[in-house]
Amino acid sequence: MGIDDTENWTINKVHYDDCSGPIYSKDAMKKTAGALLSSIRIERGSDKKISVQLYMAIREIILSDGLGAGDRLPASRTLAREIGVSRTTVIDAIDRLIAEGMLVSKVGAGTFVSEILEHQRPAIVQTAQTEAERAKPRLSHTITHASESYAQRSWLPHETRAFVTALPALDAFPKTHWARISARHLRGDTDEIMGYGEPQGYHRLRHAIAGHLNAVRGIKCRPEQIFVTGGAQQAFSLIGRVLLNAGDRVWYENPGAAGARNAFVACGAVLTPVPVDQDGMNIACGLRQAPHFRLAFVTPSHQQPLGHVMSLTRRLELLEAANQAQAIIVEDDYDGEFHFDGRPQPPLKSIDTQDRVIYVGTFSKTLFPSLRLGFMLVPDSLVGVFDNVFASWISSPPTSTQAIVADFMEEGQFATHIRMMRRLYHARYKVLMEAGEMLPDTIRLQETNSGFHTTAYLDSTIDETEIAAQADAQGVTVAPLGRYCLSPIAQKGIVLGFGSASPEDIWAGMTVLSNLPALDRG
Amino acid sequence: MGIDDTENWTINKVHYDDCSGPIYSKDAMKKTAGALLSSIRIERGSDKKISVQLYMAIREIILSDGLGAGDRLPASRTLAREIGVSRTTVIDAIDRLIAEGMLVSKVGAGTFVSEILEHQRPAIVQTAQTEAERAKPRLSHTITHASESYAQRSWLPHETRAFVTALPALDAFPKTHWARISARHLRGDTDEIMGYGEPQGYHRLRHAIAGHLNAVRGIKCRPEQIFVTGGAQQAFSLIGRVLLNAGDRVWYENPGAAGARNAFVACGAVLTPVPVDQDGMNIACGLRQAPHFRLAFVTPSHQQPLGHVMSLTRRLELLEAANQAQAIIVEDDYDGEFHFDGRPQPPLKSIDTQDRVIYVGTFSKTLFPSLRLGFMLVPDSLVGVFDNVFASWISSPPTSTQAIVADFMEEGQFATHIRMMRRLYHARYKVLMEAGEMLPDTIRLQETNSGFHTTAYLDSTIDETEIAAQADAQGVTVAPLGRYCLSPIAQKGIVLGFGSASPEDIWAGMTVLSNLPALDRG
Repeated sequence: MGIDDTENWTINKVHYDDCSGPIYSKDAMKKTAGALLSSIRIERGSDKKISVQLYMAIREIILSDGLGAGDRLPASRTLAREIGVSRTTVIDAIDRLIAEGMLVSKVGAGTFVSEILEHQRPAIVQTAQTEAERAKPRLSHTITHASESYAQRSWLPHETRAFVTALPALDAFPKTHWARISARHLRGDTDEIMGYGEPQGYHRLRHAIAGHLNAVRGIKCRPEQIFVTGGAQQAFSLIGRVLLNAGDRVWYENPGAAGARNAFVACGAVLTPVPVDQDGMNIACGLRQAPHFRLAFVTPSHQQPLGHVMSLTRRLELLEAANQAQAIIVEDDYDGEFHFDGRPQPPLKSIDTQDRVIYVGTFSKTLFPSLRLGFMLVPDSLVGVFDNVFASWISSPPTSTQAIVADFMEEGQFATHIRMMRRLYHARYKVLMEAGEMLPDTIRLQETNSGFHTTAYLDSTIDETEIAAQADAQGVTVAPLGRYCLSPIAQKGIVLGFGSASPEDIWAGMTVLSNLPALDRG
Repeated sequence: MGIDDTENWTINKVHYDDCSGPIYSKDAMKKTAGALLSSIRIERGSDKKISVQLYMAIREIILSDGLGAGDRLPASRTLAREIGVSRTTVIDAIDRLIAEGMLVSKVGAGTFVSEILEHQRPAIVQTAQTEAERAKPRLSHTITHASESYAQRSWLPHETRAFVTALPALDAFPKTHWARISARHLRGDTDEIMGYGEPQGYHRLRHAIAGHLNAVRGIKCRPEQIFVTGGAQQAFSLIGRVLLNAGDRVWYENPGAAGARNAFVACGAVLTPVPVDQDGMNIACGLRQAPHFRLAFVTPSHQQPLGHVMSLTRRLELLEAANQAQAIIVEDDYDGEFHFDGRPQPPLKSIDTQDRVIYVGTFSKTLFPSLRLGFMLVPDSLVGVFDNVFASWISSPPTSTQAIVADFMEEGQFATHIRMMRRLYHARYKVLMEAGEMLPDTIRLQETNSGFHTTAYLDSTIDETEIAAQADAQGVTVAPLGRYCLSPIAQKGIVLGFGSASPEDIWAGMTVLSNLPALDRG
């Protein structure tokens, strides 16, 4: 079945006098065709082969109606001379257009623009008409709605300076060992490392993660419950898509992390900002606002960004509230390994007797961010659902990356690295607190005992965004607390990372901070 | 605010006589607490530290109600002796539980189970009650609906044998050079390679891809239109989420690729199976079934799986139909580089004067699948939308992977590799056709002039799934055409890949095929 069946389409054969672009009448076209072709200019220094340039140029003249259906092309010898290229080049370009169906060669008669173009002329003439429509593409309702509510995520750090958050000590990473494992895999079993990987994650990595969670974090789980994702962010997106309908309520820590927030917003969720105090999320406040919540997002081991540990009371309250509402809790354990006394905070998941918690982990902090590797541990009741989703339409992270991390964990390098980093972050934290003593009394650093960021609270007279702007102008990055807020909070503050900057940079950064004009009492 | 505020929750204090699990009366509990603790058994050969085992065991006894709120623990010395561990180990485990809030130490009186547990007892007693509810988790409507409609994707190949499809020649990949570039990056700028990458993709890779599409595929585009994804599959998922509402109609080639299909189904799309002939998708049939389609998915350069090239007539018809319906076309150019005469088929995108086409490419075939790297080229009208989506909630692929591929492209290795592979696939294709001459006349191999798969058509009396099963039993993989079908088609056939298998394997595989009992005329 071909072009003959197209009669019953409604082709809109309108013509506009005011349409812009190179539209010619049929007569003008015939006269100018030869001139248009000889006006083609070849760029000698370009990456593109000359025959490709010529092919694209002729094609564009045809598509923009400069050459009409049935028009005859000048002889290749003529074209070659006028454009200033070899005849072989012209023939190559024309052959491509013939293969593509744009041109037709008739033995003894020459080369012509295909009659096919005639039938489809309306599509080309409409360019001007649909310009406005094209500028406003039709999007899905959820994405259209969500795009007004995304939190700014533009400060995702990619350079080590004082006091960027969420960035581990890249300078202390065992790159040589990493490169050695990496090279070993490229020499190893080609099929396993280079073929399509296992959709739910490389089996050796799933085993290593389950073993680690069992042995170090006190979570009883099986490798089948672990799904490897392209960073924690992909896990949040998937959880949202699998569990949320547009309009569903999600309890969210206020202040809280920006990335997961956007992932849920993009699914049409309505976020309920739940206040956070030194015991973590205030469950009673959550219940008052949205008792029938569908999901709760928490960072119990080290509240992001305030740094508090969620109390056992609150943990049990949250589990009970989720149980009543038949909701799911997403636990983001982004830096729970780095407790300064060497004993990580127990995850909420470890006391989840009701299978309400999906535990999300990341290698961005324990190894490095650009690995883009994370995982989720889902309750038994959801294993089948996620198995199906991963098998059907998920792109898992590169197998080689997963294999390197699996080796790293199996060989004990991972545990060693975490131990070393814990000591290093503790040391950098002490430098931060020591250097922080020079700060004026309009700002006070909050103590923490894990991770690699803390909060500095500001007097209510101080403008936190002004602090951030003044610091940035002097090469120091601080994140105003307001950036983490879903709804405004009274408390002013800035979040300071101390993981990636050297002790010297921390001192220098603190010197800058302590001299900021905006810290002077107003 | 703490536990005092919980009075206005509705805690469901029900008790069931028939609940299963280790539930004890308060009196029985007190009597058995000591016995339960001394019954803890330590596994000496385990990966877990002994103190962690002990900590988890005591915690489980508390959570399962074996020890009640206010119960006093035996002295550490007693516990150590009865369990057979050192007193230090017991103290370490108990300290963890105190830090966690499960236990409370009272000076001079001993260690007790925290009173907090008393308040939350209902959550624990309900275990049996909610078992059935937990087994049926509440999912989003779209995912619940979609999960019944996924195509099987379980045959994604990960080993090179005759005649797996979609797998390139892993044995011919320049692994040494790849490893060298990879090592170089780990020695280079740490921040750029290890920090959080650019959300839309590593800028050098976006430039290299745009340059390649310009120079080799004849597509005029800017790097800003390129978005790097975790494989083509992630691109399809994103396109679906951004453009589709539940119930939207998507034209889909029948037969067609399985992965993209699931991605659209997961967004709630209703797929319209549009027949494919030697000219590609039959547009008139699509218009008859669903004139108001929202999206069309096509493989114009090399139809997946039949191998036909879409004719210019059909291309122009499709562009016009999309224009009328204000629909978007997704062009999956999965293997368009490998045209045997060295001149790739022009992508549909190259004649898309109306900005209707999103072009999706992958490095799974040009490099190797487990890279999980792909990209999409979106029309100008959609750049802002995808910019926002990527900045807000996408996990981009690992920067190091992107950097290696960028180097590979900039240094010309990519073009060289494609040239070599094109020759190699052509050679393997010739082996396939030559070996295919031994096949009985119930099966006929279709010729192709690009890529690394082709179709063998079967007499209508032959059972294609039986062929696949018999071949598989002898170590040869073929994909029945039916697996690619959204709705049944009359034509029977099997799809044969020839990219990853050696000439010897191709001969051996064809010998197996030609002797299959199921190929005998019935």
